[in-house]
Amino acid sequence: MIHEIRLQTKSRDEMLDITAQVEGILVQENVQDGLIVVYSPHTTAGITINENADPDVQKDILRRLEEIYPRDNANDRHIEGNSAAHLKASTVGASQSVIIHEGTLLLGRWQGIYFCEFDGPRMRSCFVKIISG
Amino acid sequence: MIHEIRLQTKSRDEMLDITAQVEGILVQENVQDGLIVVYSPHTTAGITINENADPDVQKDILRRLEEIYPRDNANDRHIEGNSAAHLKASTVGASQSVIIHEGTLLLGRWQGIYFCEFDGPRMRSCFVKIISG
Amino acid sequence: MIHEIRLQTKSRDEMLDITAQVEGILVQENVQDGLIVVYSPHTTAGITINENADPDVQKDILRRLEEIYPRDNANDRHIEGNSAAHLKASTVGASQSVIIHEGTLLLGRWQGIYFCEFDGPRMRSCFVKIISG
Repeated sequence: MIHEIRLQTKSRDEMLDITAQVEGILVQENVQDGLIVVYSPHTTAGITINENADPDVQKDILRRLEEIYPRDNANDRHIEGNSAAHLKASTVGASQSVIIHEGTLLLGRWQGIYFCEFDGPRMRSCFVKIISG
Repeated sequence: MIHEIRLQTKSRDEMLDITAQVEGILVQENVQDGLIVVYSPHTTAGITINENADPDVQKDILRRLEEIYPRDNANDRHIEGNSAAHLKASTVGASQSVIIHEGTLLLGRWQGIYFCEFDGPRMRSCFVKIISG
Repeated sequence: MIHEIRLQTKSRDEMLDITAQVEGILVQENVQDGLIVVYSPHTTAGITINENADPDVQKDILRRLEEIYPRDNANDRHIEGNSAAHLKASTVGASQSVIIHEGTLLLGRWQGIYFCEFDGPRMRSCFVKIISG
């Protein structure tokens, strides 16, 4: 069974903590052990796992990604002008896998699962799939 | 069961769309639900998921990766001179996982699966594994 | 069943080859086919797959990651001062998946699995989960 999380992003670059939604899906499915895959079907957005304590970490991540992949680059050919967003998406990755152990996500103490918007604001979604085992 | 996709790359840096080959393997295996993992056994090539519409996106991705990880770097020690390719491979990742839903790859509308060559041209291969569930 | 690999890192930035430990877990579990997921529960450390032959590759990877994500950046806001480590972790990724084929890891000839420390030295751990299928 596939679950979809729908999201409205509010900025061009944004990290949205979707850990609670992913946990809610796991509780609903009631799987004790396995793997959960969180997948972005977009090419200018990705998924990452990073710190959920100090929100400044997310700001620094987004600002530094913009420093190395600036929106404007005189050599870009892509007509939409958002090649930087495609690069950021491939850097963090289209999906993340988290181990399920005894019915819970085996996240580290400071880890959250983030939907990373790199070309917002937009309506977005991500898919969640559980493999038990 | 493991499937191997064999590839002949033609440039030093190149993104090869292997979506059709991966879909062909899925059809052959006839799995309805699960996960498909596309894996590069190379250390100077990787797998990414990104836009399959405008080929300029791929050109911009490869050119910008070269801008931040240039082939030549006076401080590199690796005698083969291809450390940049190793960095690019770890940045995009050695593999990607895609959800299988109702017998098809759950890719977004504009997503394709790419074998990323960073030290070609070479004969390459990648492995595809399906986990049903 | 979940396995934990405990590690003592010795430098601020370090790549520790954990391939033998992961293989040992696979032998112990005696699974013939499936997927093995190696997961870092930390936000300033990650997992990557890269060359295991010339140790200079690892040195070049760590040095070049530091060049693009330097420890000190005047615009960082995060009070711990380790935002660069968070960026490096999201770049290589929190986990890697390797295919299991005929009871062995389907790694390429030159591939090793590395725990990547970006804010050491510290006591660390990573989790290993096998999905058979």
